[in-house]
Amino acid sequence: MRVSRCFLPVLKESPSDAQIVSHKLMLQAGLVRQTAAGIYAWLPIGFRVLKKIEQIVREEQDRAGAQEMLMPTIQSADLWRESGRYDAYGPEMLRITDRHKREMLYGPTNEEMLTALFRDDVNSYRDLPRTLYHIQWKFRDEVRPRFGVMRGREFLMKDAYSFDLDEAGARLSYYTQLLAYLRTFQRLGIQAVPMKAASGPIGGDLSHEFIVLAPTGESEVFYDAAFEEFDWAQGGLDYGDEAGLHGLFDRVSSTYAATDETHDEARWAEVPEARRRTGRGIEVGHIFYFGDKYSAAMGLKVSGQDGKPLTPMMGSYGIGVSRLVGAIIEASHDDKGIVWPAAVAPWQVGLVTMRGDDAASITAADDIYAKLTAAGVETLYDDRDERGGVKLGTQDLIGLPWQLIVGPRGLAAGTVELKNRKTGDKEELSIDSALTKLTS
Amino acid sequence: MRVSRCFLPVLKESPSDAQIVSHKLMLQAGLVRQTAAGIYAWLPIGFRVLKKIEQIVREEQDRAGAQEMLMPTIQSADLWRESGRYDAYGPEMLRITDRHKREMLYGPTNEEMLTALFRDDVNSYRDLPRTLYHIQWKFRDEVRPRFGVMRGREFLMKDAYSFDLDEAGARLSYYTQLLAYLRTFQRLGIQAVPMKAASGPIGGDLSHEFIVLAPTGESEVFYDAAFEEFDWAQGGLDYGDEAGLHGLFDRVSSTYAATDETHDEARWAEVPEARRRTGRGIEVGHIFYFGDKYSAAMGLKVSGQDGKPLTPMMGSYGIGVSRLVGAIIEASHDDKGIVWPAAVAPWQVGLVTMRGDDAASITAADDIYAKLTAAGVETLYDDRDERGGVKLGTQDLIGLPWQLIVGPRGLAAGTVELKNRKTGDKEELSIDSALTKLTS
Repeated sequence: MRVSRCFLPVLKESPSDAQIVSHKLMLQAGLVRQTAAGIYAWLPIGFRVLKKIEQIVREEQDRAGAQEMLMPTIQSADLWRESGRYDAYGPEMLRITDRHKREMLYGPTNEEMLTALFRDDVNSYRDLPRTLYHIQWKFRDEVRPRFGVMRGREFLMKDAYSFDLDEAGARLSYYTQLLAYLRTFQRLGIQAVPMKAASGPIGGDLSHEFIVLAPTGESEVFYDAAFEEFDWAQGGLDYGDEAGLHGLFDRVSSTYAATDETHDEARWAEVPEARRRTGRGIEVGHIFYFGDKYSAAMGLKVSGQDGKPLTPMMGSYGIGVSRLVGAIIEASHDDKGIVWPAAVAPWQVGLVTMRGDDAASITAADDIYAKLTAAGVETLYDDRDERGGVKLGTQDLIGLPWQLIVGPRGLAAGTVELKNRKTGDKEELSIDSALTKLTS
Repeated sequence: MRVSRCFLPVLKESPSDAQIVSHKLMLQAGLVRQTAAGIYAWLPIGFRVLKKIEQIVREEQDRAGAQEMLMPTIQSADLWRESGRYDAYGPEMLRITDRHKREMLYGPTNEEMLTALFRDDVNSYRDLPRTLYHIQWKFRDEVRPRFGVMRGREFLMKDAYSFDLDEAGARLSYYTQLLAYLRTFQRLGIQAVPMKAASGPIGGDLSHEFIVLAPTGESEVFYDAAFEEFDWAQGGLDYGDEAGLHGLFDRVSSTYAATDETHDEARWAEVPEARRRTGRGIEVGHIFYFGDKYSAAMGLKVSGQDGKPLTPMMGSYGIGVSRLVGAIIEASHDDKGIVWPAAVAPWQVGLVTMRGDDAASITAADDIYAKLTAAGVETLYDDRDERGGVKLGTQDLIGLPWQLIVGPRGLAAGTVELKNRKTGDKEELSIDSALTKLTS
């Protein structure tokens, strides 16, 4: 993509009205703009990051055997009366009356809707187990939206729902999602510690939050340093390996990690002092097992193998996709700007001409751009006739993994400069060597 | 995907409450379920089709130089007061009051929001021209939603917006989108005739609708048979070829095509009688040039090359992504079910065992499934222990381009049956030949 043809507005100054670093950087680097309190438009660069995260979440859900679908944003209030949550949910639910005076709402979550869909179409034990998910915008009318997309009102969530014939099956579905989450966060390039959690308004008795450590986190966290050496991707573990999934769950459960809500001083005291880690964290995922809470309330039944009706056991599994954009920045930035993990970077390479009015630089950079693009390397090419220093500052701010800098002096000697954004390391090398390095 | 692990509910009977064939088939084949009046959940098979259409729309927008972003669904009423459309829009706008009594709405379109975003971040003639688009859910509170997703209330739309320095530039942006639309619909496997249209509540003086011909269409259409031989993809024509784009527009404009709203009996009489075609059609796209209507009302200005302020000229360009699922079915089905164009089919091949309890069939089909999947051929494998006739009926209903049928009798002779859903042609061939045919 050529910057001269992009809608890529960058602010000269760090916005003073943003309180946390991710919010400041998302505004300054032109990822988002607020269009109403707690509601954001995703500009092209932010949109690209959002889509990358979404795609990794999707691939890991698919790999774990969950099937994608898409439920609407607007729901009928009657659906929520069936579960008893319509009145219980409180003012965070955006309630809407349509032109025919029907009570509707903007879905904050989808347990009711999917339970109803299942109830209408699934009849037999042979149709279970199933885990379905969707990635859809939700709305929670926060009383005081803040911290940008970290605590917005309209937000993108992946929510999955599992249906099983019995508790043993449902627990296995839960462990499967637990493993999928560990793999998802690892691929995103962040560490998210699973912590036993209170289940809140979703209900149920088994729940974990996934917490990214960051000084601006909303909750205090306590965890065993063992998580720092944890194999997050769980290398050889297969989704079909029942014993392995149980073993993973036992290991997570027996390694201390808790938020201030669930912190247990007695168990904490058992963790050797040198291994106690505390800090603040941001919730980026939350999974729940809640048995027959919704299936029983809403009359979802299937006929069992013996012909008798059975009430499926359920769980639900959320990842805050839009929130993750902020959380990743909180965990990965420096004083110059964002430092994207490669997996979610909007482009892999920022190509910059130091002199936008130098014909030799333009010819060389055009050629490099064509070659990188042809090789499938996502490249943002800053081809503007703008001061080199300004362009480099923008590059540091938007945080692509690599910067490839083309200047008249280097070109005269046959070289370009390749800079690693994360380490800051720079090397002078021939154009061919640079291309080889970036395309291999 | 194995049917035994899918959420793929198929109805035995054609639903009697649906009035048009696409709605009936979408319910019967399990593409969607209605969750409230005019609001639908997309089940896995429908979701896959929706995503395929979305991706083709996206690729053709990108190719035409438009840049993707994402605006939120909930907008502030104040934004619409600036353009004067808040009161004018009427009861089709879903109006919402949040917990702080602020007036909000569920966006039916995004001219106001993007004009405001541009106003805040774009200052110079150098930042133009730009065309931006997003693919986002919209809501129009239809008084009488019907025909399934064809006239639903919550619907997925691609809407693009162009900003140019002058009318000549804006017209070129319009022609660029016109070409992108022709290419998009051709790739989707349908013919959508561009027709001069009234511009309605969007405003402006240049507008085309894209109409798919189908007997259940909402409007009467009149067009010159020349469109039947039209080169929809406009092979050879480049987006940078200004004269070519003008030529395309002239050709479209001078070839008669109109809906009942814009039909002109005098011009119609000039079309030779043998070339007059009439019928009914479904609108699947609508493009508008409206000059400075929004930019002037909302105070969007950039400084021109001479330093003087300039009001950009705009256009907007919509494609009904969710509606297209229904429109394609209206245009492509038979009495057995849907006949998907390959480009949007949820899977390319339906693999069926005629006897789900026959070990040799299972072994052979498992092996074929593994090979097709490894070759990247999207395959739905009906591995259920269900009567062969039922499985074939489901295959015809869901309409994948190819059916590969594995039965004990054929296997004994070393053959499988390959059926083309569209033509109904069947051939017996060896497993290797079938694989070669499907993977080449």
